[in-house]
Amino acid sequence: MLRTQMSREKAGIEEALEAFDFNKMCEASESFKIADMGCSSGPNALCAAKAIVDGIYRRCQGLGCPSPELLIYLNDLPGNDFNMLFQSLSSFKNLNGVGGECFIAGMPGSFYGRLFPTRTLHFVHSSSSLHWLSQQVPPDLEKKAIRALNKGNIYISKTSPQSVLKAYAVQFHKDFTSFLNSRSQEIVPAGRMVISLFGRTGDDPTSPECCQQWDLLAQVFRDMIVNGLLQEGKLDSFNIPFYSPSPQELTSAVHNEGSFTLNRLEILEIDWDRVTSSETSNGSTKTILDNQSISQSTVKFVRAVMESLLESHFGREVMDPLFRRHEQIVCDHLSRNRNNKYICIILSLTKT
Amino acid sequence: MLRTQMSREKAGIEEALEAFDFNKMCEASESFKIADMGCSSGPNALCAAKAIVDGIYRRCQGLGCPSPELLIYLNDLPGNDFNMLFQSLSSFKNLNGVGGECFIAGMPGSFYGRLFPTRTLHFVHSSSSLHWLSQQVPPDLEKKAIRALNKGNIYISKTSPQSVLKAYAVQFHKDFTSFLNSRSQEIVPAGRMVISLFGRTGDDPTSPECCQQWDLLAQVFRDMIVNGLLQEGKLDSFNIPFYSPSPQELTSAVHNEGSFTLNRLEILEIDWDRVTSSETSNGSTKTILDNQSISQSTVKFVRAVMESLLESHFGREVMDPLFRRHEQIVCDHLSRNRNNKYICIILSLTKT
Repeated sequence: MLRTQMSREKAGIEEALEAFDFNKMCEASESFKIADMGCSSGPNALCAAKAIVDGIYRRCQGLGCPSPELLIYLNDLPGNDFNMLFQSLSSFKNLNGVGGECFIAGMPGSFYGRLFPTRTLHFVHSSSSLHWLSQQVPPDLEKKAIRALNKGNIYISKTSPQSVLKAYAVQFHKDFTSFLNSRSQEIVPAGRMVISLFGRTGDDPTSPECCQQWDLLAQVFRDMIVNGLLQEGKLDSFNIPFYSPSPQELTSAVHNEGSFTLNRLEILEIDWDRVTSSETSNGSTKTILDNQSISQSTVKFVRAVMESLLESHFGREVMDPLFRRHEQIVCDHLSRNRNNKYICIILSLTKT
Repeated sequence: MLRTQMSREKAGIEEALEAFDFNKMCEASESFKIADMGCSSGPNALCAAKAIVDGIYRRCQGLGCPSPELLIYLNDLPGNDFNMLFQSLSSFKNLNGVGGECFIAGMPGSFYGRLFPTRTLHFVHSSSSLHWLSQQVPPDLEKKAIRALNKGNIYISKTSPQSVLKAYAVQFHKDFTSFLNSRSQEIVPAGRMVISLFGRTGDDPTSPECCQQWDLLAQVFRDMIVNGLLQEGKLDSFNIPFYSPSPQELTSAVHNEGSFTLNRLEILEIDWDRVTSSETSNGSTKTILDNQSISQSTVKFVRAVMESLLESHFGREVMDPLFRRHEQIVCDHLSRNRNNKYICIILSLTKT
């Protein structure tokens, strides 16, 4: 998660927590139940959970009441490294709460289906996960005719035909609606949800803000094919199970599903040169501006997000040469284009 | 878990489930929450959970109502292999329920402390776990003077002084009371608990039914020291964090803690020669009676239960020679003593 994004999400979480009457919950000995969807297992896996617990403790302090008991469910797919996640939970003991204890469970399963009993959760959070589609590849892209039309690409691109754009958009809409529908059954009335995902600012799904990074990666693959390092068929059969929706697509999906009020939709523009190791690790604000440093940190970021997926399709032996070339191609790109952005969209919703 | 024990536990579970008005829960859209404490991650890890879910489905069928939504928490220490456990959950889809879905979460942590919010659970189960003490070794046994008194032993033995017996009994009482007290806060009024653990039939904590197996294992260690295969200090600093309580100790701990009614205490005597691979794996009733076969299956059973603990103290390289000798010593023992039993105690409790 990027620092700018994290700080805006925290603000969204704090705002959403204001909706709850913790005083009343405490008096009724009711526990407050939280789910973090797609938490992963890396060093940032507990960031959101900590921010939520911190927010509740601060809010209760402000209200002058003890905190209710908290139950946090950490969700991800069954293949996630829950062992590593559970062994890192001792760091939770450092949080300073007054009042109820904080209990933490793991909930394995896809958030595109039901995970919890009806009306169980008070607060749901999901950070940087909902841009991943439920299927490894949108099923329509598996059709031979459409696949051939997206030859040489790994995602939507300027050269992609309408059928490819549609296959991605349809799959995202279906998945996002399933997510909303499952959560609508699990969240208590007036419960809250704060989610963030990669997206785009406008209608065009081929705009650089959502395709540029994948275009550069596809270019690396094409170079490797030309140089005999990769078979052409391998690239043609690969499409990233990812989609960056527009604000309009998200708004209309929420409206059509019908169970949530959209309180706020925030669009964050994050410069590629803000994704530097100095920003993401020690919080320093020093901006590294030379192209080589930016391309190194950009590729490090893409590799962290994409490696396991790419490795399972292309093989482990391809990874090092792939990302070495990727760095060079990103560097060349930066020398011609300085204005490169990711778009992150944060939604704040209330269950009606 | 042994087959006799499993079948008696199932009967206890079915009986306890009769206390719940599933019809009313369904009408109120209330979910039924279950915890299995110390589930482990091996091939039997989901046996109890399946038996409980099966029992609920059968009971609801009998009542002519749909099943309520179920939420099962699988608990074990954070070092348990939850990854393996979660990846085996797909086998749950084969259960035939009508009505609410069955959701499964993992809850890492020690069951000797609080794990769940107040009044959350309807049914708690624990199989073959509560004979393990919360500490690696009863702290009183860490005192040099007492440790010296138990020289050459790894558990309570006929030659152990009273101070050793007391150190074990005190630690078990403290742990079992913590377990009851934690659960008493987490279980709803009139909620049920079925637990099983190794124990003994009478007052004497040095009786063969609870010490024989550890005495034979200690004998293996002493042999290895004599043969220069193990350092004496290694054995002296090892005491098994295990205790087999008497029915009287369990009854009075439940009474003194005060939150539960003890509905039933069942004592199972399980012959060593019933712990055969044919009984535990494919359910065949063929009884293998020659000493070598019995000693092989007995040692296989002890190794499955004890290996990780012994390995962390004595080292991996000791394991194979240890269990080879163990098999011989058990075989010699069987040629002199045919009447060897484990004692398993099953408790059925109601939260008052």
